[in-house]
Amino acid sequence: MERIEEFLAERDRLNKRLLAQADLPIKRFFALDQDVFEDGAIPGKYKELLGLVASAVLRCEDCVTYHLHRASQAGATHHEIEESLAIALLIGGSITVPLLRRAFERLESL
Amino acid sequence: MERIEEFLAERDRLNKRLLAQADLPIKRFFALDQDVFEDGAIPGKYKELLGLVASAVLRCEDCVTYHLHRASQAGATHHEIEESLAIALLIGGSITVPLLRRAFERLESL
Amino acid sequence: MERIEEFLAERDRLNKRLLAQADLPIKRFFALDQDVFEDGAIPGKYKELLGLVASAVLRCEDCVTYHLHRASQAGATHHEIEESLAIALLIGGSITVPLLRRAFERLESL
Amino acid sequence: MERIEEFLAERDRLNKRLLAQADLPIKRFFALDQDVFEDGAIPGKYKELLGLVASAVLRCEDCVTYHLHRASQAGATHHEIEESLAIALLIGGSITVPLLRRAFERLESL
Amino acid sequence: MERIEEFLAERDRLNKRLLAQADLPIKRFFALDQDVFEDGAIPGKYKELLGLVASAVLRCEDCVTYHLHRASQAGATHHEIEESLAIALLIGGSITVPLLRRAFERLESL
Amino acid sequence: MERIEEFLAERDRLNKRLLAQADLPIKRFFALDQDVFEDGAIPGKYKELLGLVASAVLRCEDCVTYHLHRASQAGATHHEIEESLAIALLIGGSITVPLLRRAFERLESL
Repeated sequence: MERIEEFLAERDRLNKRLLAQADLPIKRFFALDQDVFEDGAIPGKYKELLGLVASAVLRCEDCVTYHLHRASQAGATHHEIEESLAIALLIGGSITVPLLRRAFERLESL
Repeated sequence: MERIEEFLAERDRLNKRLLAQADLPIKRFFALDQDVFEDGAIPGKYKELLGLVASAVLRCEDCVTYHLHRASQAGATHHEIEESLAIALLIGGSITVPLLRRAFERLESL
Repeated sequence: MERIEEFLAERDRLNKRLLAQADLPIKRFFALDQDVFEDGAIPGKYKELLGLVASAVLRCEDCVTYHLHRASQAGATHHEIEESLAIALLIGGSITVPLLRRAFERLESL
Repeated sequence: MERIEEFLAERDRLNKRLLAQADLPIKRFFALDQDVFEDGAIPGKYKELLGLVASAVLRCEDCVTYHLHRASQAGATHHEIEESLAIALLIGGSITVPLLRRAFERLESL
Repeated sequence: MERIEEFLAERDRLNKRLLAQADLPIKRFFALDQDVFEDGAIPGKYKELLGLVASAVLRCEDCVTYHLHRASQAGATHHEIEESLAIALLIGGSITVPLLRRAFERLESL
Repeated sequence: MERIEEFLAERDRLNKRLLAQADLPIKRFFALDQDVFEDGAIPGKYKELLGLVASAVLRCEDCVTYHLHRASQAGATHHEIEESLAIALLIGGSITVPLLRRAFERLESL
C-alpha cells in the first residue's frame, strides 16, 4: 500500500498540471469543491465523513483515500470512520467490498 | 408533490408485502439496514445525513425522500440539510440536479 | 400498479416508434439484445434471471419488470425469483430496495 | 408524454425554489453548469449533444429531455440526434433502452 | 496477470484485517453475502453466474475475478461463462469492455 | 504513465484473445461499436468527443485513454478536448476528478 504522503504528493502534482491546462469553469469547480467541505452548519469533520461515504458508494478509490485522510486530520475517530463505512456497505452493497478492504487496511495505518 | 405521510404509508405497505415473500437473507438485510443508522459513535442525525448524501449521489429518489424525513425528525436543521445537498451536488455533478430540485421542494415543506 | 399486459403493449408501441426512426446500428443492437437471451449452453430461464439481477443492480425499473415477466414465462418459480432478488440486494445494496419493493409487488401478481 | 413547454416551465419553477433556499456554492455551481455549454472551441450545438449522450448513459431522464430540446434549438438535426443516441446505446448498453424509447418519442415531436 | 491463488490469498488477508476492525453490522453483512450464494432453489453454479453478470455490469473487477473462479469451481463451463459475459456486454454496453478483456484472459487460464 | 503505443498494443492483444473465445453476439457487438463512431451526420471528430465525455462520466479510464487518442487523431485540438472534459466534470461531478487528472496528464503528451 502506497504511503499517504506519496498519495497526497502525486495528487498535488497532477492537480497542478490539470489546472495549468484548464479554463475558468474547471478552476472554479475546483474552488467550489473545497468550499463545500469548510466548517459551516455542519462541522468539517462530519463533512469529510459525508465525502467518505459518497466516495465509497460511488466506488472512487482515490476519493476514499483522500477523505479518510481528511476525516482523520479533522479528528474523526477510528470508530466514527468504521460506522461511516458500515453505512456505505449497507447502502452500496457488496460491490463496494473490494474498495472497503483497502480502506480498512489504510485505516489501520492512519 | 406527494405528502410525506402518504409516502411513508405506501413505503410501509410495500415493505410488509416484500418481507412476507422474502426468505431469511433479505429479512436480515432489512434488520441490518436499520442497525447502521442507530445512534453510535456518530449521532443518529449525522448518520441520516450520511444516508441522504449517499442516496443523492446514487440518485435514488425514494431514498432521498426517506432520509430527508428521518434527518429532519432527528433534528437536522434546514441549513445542515442544505449543506449536505451541496456536497452531494459537487461530488455527484449536475446529473443529480433533477433529484435535488424535488428534494429542495420537499425540504420547504418539512 | 400497471398491469403487465399494459406495460408490454406500451413497450411494444415505443419500440416500434424507436425502430422506425433508427439507423442500422440501433436496429442491429436490438436484434443482438434478443439473441443473447436465447436458449444455449445456459437455458433461457436462467438467462432471464441473469437479466433480472443485472437490471436490479443497475436499477432499471422497466428492465426489471420485463425480465420478471420473461423469467416467469420461461418457468422460473417464485422461489427462484426470490433468490435472484436476494442476490441483487446483497450485491447492489439498500439503494435497490425501492425498486425491489415494487418488484415483489409485481411478483405476487405473476 | 408531457409537452416540452410544460416540462420547461416546471423545471424553471423548481430551479427558482431551489436557488431561493441554496447558499453560494450551489448558486455558483448552477452558473458554471451554464458556462460550459456556451459556444467556444466546440460550437454550442455539439456541446448540447455531449450533454445529451452523457445524460443518456447516466440515465437521467430529465437531463435527456432538456438536452434534446437544447440541441434541437441549437440546430441539431434529427439525424445528428439519432447518431448521438446510437453512441449512447452502444456505450451504455441495453439498460439505456427504456430511456431511449421515450427520447425517440419526444424526438418525433420536436 | 496475477495468478488466481495470489488473488485469493490477498483477498483473504484483507478480509481478515477488515473483519478484525469491523463491528457487528459489517460482520453480519459478510455472512449474508455468503448465504445468498448457497445452493437453493437455484443451484450454486447459476448463482455464481448471477454474481458474475451483476459484477460485470457494475464494473467491479475484483468481484468479476472472484465469481469467475467460483463459477468455474462450481462446474460452469467455458461456454456458460462466455454466454454470461455476452449478456453482461449487451446489458452494460461497451463501457464494460476493458473489464471483459481481462475477464476473457483469465477465463483462458481457468 | 504508460505510453499510448503500449496501451494500444496491449488493448489490441487482449481484444484478439477475447474475440478468439467469443461467440457471434460479442463479435457483432464489437463491429457495431466501431460503426457508430464512423463519419456520418456528425463528423468523426465530434463522435470521438461524445465517446470521451460518456467514458469520463461513467469513469472508465481505459475508455477515456482510447477516445483521447482517437479524438486527437481525428483532429480535435487541445482546447476542444479541454472543453469536453469540463462538460464531463460539471455533469459527472468531483467523483470524476481522479480520472480527469490522469486524462490531463495524457493530454499534455498527445
